[in-house]
Amino acid sequence: MPKIVDAEARRQDVVEAVLRIIAADGLERASLRETADEAGLAVGSVRHYFAGSEELLAFSFASVVDRIVGRLEASLPDVQAAAPGTADHRAAVLALLCGLLPLDAPRAVELCAWMAFKSAARVRPFLVAEADRSHREVAVIVGRVVTALRPEGEPRESLVVEAERLLATLDGLCMHALLQPGWMTREMCVDVLERHLDGM
Amino acid sequence: MPKIVDAEARRQDVVEAVLRIIAADGLERASLRETADEAGLAVGSVRHYFAGSEELLAFSFASVVDRIVGRLEASLPDVQAAAPGTADHRAAVLALLCGLLPLDAPRAVELCAWMAFKSAARVRPFLVAEADRSHREVAVIVGRVVTALRPEGEPRESLVVEAERLLATLDGLCMHALLQPGWMTREMCVDVLERHLDGM
Repeated sequence: MPKIVDAEARRQDVVEAVLRIIAADGLERASLRETADEAGLAVGSVRHYFAGSEELLAFSFASVVDRIVGRLEASLPDVQAAAPGTADHRAAVLALLCGLLPLDAPRAVELCAWMAFKSAARVRPFLVAEADRSHREVAVIVGRVVTALRPEGEPRESLVVEAERLLATLDGLCMHALLQPGWMTREMCVDVLERHLDGM
Repeated sequence: MPKIVDAEARRQDVVEAVLRIIAADGLERASLRETADEAGLAVGSVRHYFAGSEELLAFSFASVVDRIVGRLEASLPDVQAAAPGTADHRAAVLALLCGLLPLDAPRAVELCAWMAFKSAARVRPFLVAEADRSHREVAVIVGRVVTALRPEGEPRESLVVEAERLLATLDGLCMHALLQPGWMTREMCVDVLERHLDGM
């Protein structure tokens, strides 16, 4: 089915263009026209895949969530394979959680768009369903990591507070690394995350 | 000098209108015209105080930073007056840090605008100076709180990591409370912050 493969590849090219525009100029600039220019396509070609800018943005948001959640899920078996308390377990947890931090340039573009979509969902109803899915699916995975890190038999309410605390710290770190990279360097990001894990 | 007082009061009315627009519809909608409508003024009246939308937004951002930093500074003497380790000290620290969380409706409008301005500064150069001041001044105050909470004689680099960790957690909590209020309730915000302080 080469035609279907081509269509999917083309849609992903358009998504890449949307993410680059958001990272460079903000979400408001990611119109169909600007996206077509950025992707090197005619506006008509973009319209062939996306009926309008809302569909384009919602699809791009979903793609980013799929990538982030997919990356976290791919790291989960290593966390589950290692025995809690060992250096291997700690390294696997750190590797998984670093998937939510902008520690290299492509990751920064992707997470910058993720943050922009999540924020925009507050005032753009067509992004809400995807924002809720993003929050839910990331929370489930981080919740599993927290459960593996905490003493057995800890009450569920206490685990939820720990999971929300780790999620808040990760999103705050991501935000600071994107907005204040001079202060929140990649090294500082990892140092802060390591310190947080030490205290769990 | 009633005229100067009136002018300042009028500028603050316009700022309030900007913050309400950002909270309800996002920063992109805070044009001179929309702001005049929201404030119940003619566009010409708004132009009397602000030459253009960039000046309006930069002034509004500065006002929000002044309020937030002013609130934190007003809470600092209580932290400094109480002996570390006492219940009074803990209560004073919690009261200060809660000044960075959207725990009531007016605070939510203000912090929502603060987050929007900080994010927008990434792609709007005219907001950068104020974003840097915001980060710096809040970090100084939170740094003092962290110094009061940690053991005496802790190396400076370690205190910086703790301060960045607390700042990240607070901004992450603020973001989650604004974007996912169904998950991150006011009670959960305070529970997470208390847990964080327990671990410091």
